[in-house]
Amino acid sequence: MDFYIAKIVNGDFSVVLDRVIAALKSEGFGILTDIDVRATMKQKLNIDFREYRILGACNPPLAHQALSAEDKIGTMLPCNVVVQNLGDAQVEVAAINPTSTMANVGNPALSKLADTVSDKLKRVISEI
Amino acid sequence: MDFYIAKIVNGDFSVVLDRVIAALKSEGFGILTDIDVRATMKQKLNIDFREYRILGACNPPLAHQALSAEDKIGTMLPCNVVVQNLGDAQVEVAAINPTSTMANVGNPALSKLADTVSDKLKRVISEI
Repeated sequence: MDFYIAKIVNGDFSVVLDRVIAALKSEGFGILTDIDVRATMKQKLNIDFREYRILGACNPPLAHQALSAEDKIGTMLPCNVVVQNLGDAQVEVAAINPTSTMANVGNPALSKLADTVSDKLKRVISEI
Repeated sequence: MDFYIAKIVNGDFSVVLDRVIAALKSEGFGILTDIDVRATMKQKLNIDFREYRILGACNPPLAHQALSAEDKIGTMLPCNVVVQNLGDAQVEVAAINPTSTMANVGNPALSKLADTVSDKLKRVISEI
């Protein structure tokens, strides 16, 4: 099983980014963090990188349940959604797939929550 | 293999937090994100949660190599380090263990980088 759920869509990078944020909101995810990888690579390494954003998405009630089920699961939170510019007006959106990445934690209560979050993120990806 | 590398240390929460940030810096990690889970839970859910911070640590050269080896690995970046207050002057520090969490990506070049990062994070945890 892939560690991500992804789709390539046609459109302007910033327009797709806004659609991703709106689709996340409709599934109850707020954006807690937003890393501009292109800007970071330029600033830290003076390397030109493609447009690449890492959005840290958090559904507070589900995050609280996950933290209550597994006290160190914060090492895997928030759920990241990558939006990257492939060029030629193609933008790839890739969300983490918690069903895959949290499987080896070996906590059944957490796995059930991971499935719920993965289902939500699949809907986000299908909606954009 | 555990998905985290952790240690419980004695001390004041904010003092331990500062030591973690300094230890990360000495291994080449800057802090790209910093989520105050306690404040977020209070704000979004009106729930009182223990002091719990999620630091997003990034070693820019290694992050660039990882992104070059696996274009969607941003879904697992930055490397999170959780600092949580257990009470009774005990603070637990838990770093993600990329050797474990990136194993199922199935990319040998990435696995090698994950090992390098896990070794660095093990040194951070042992230093604090």
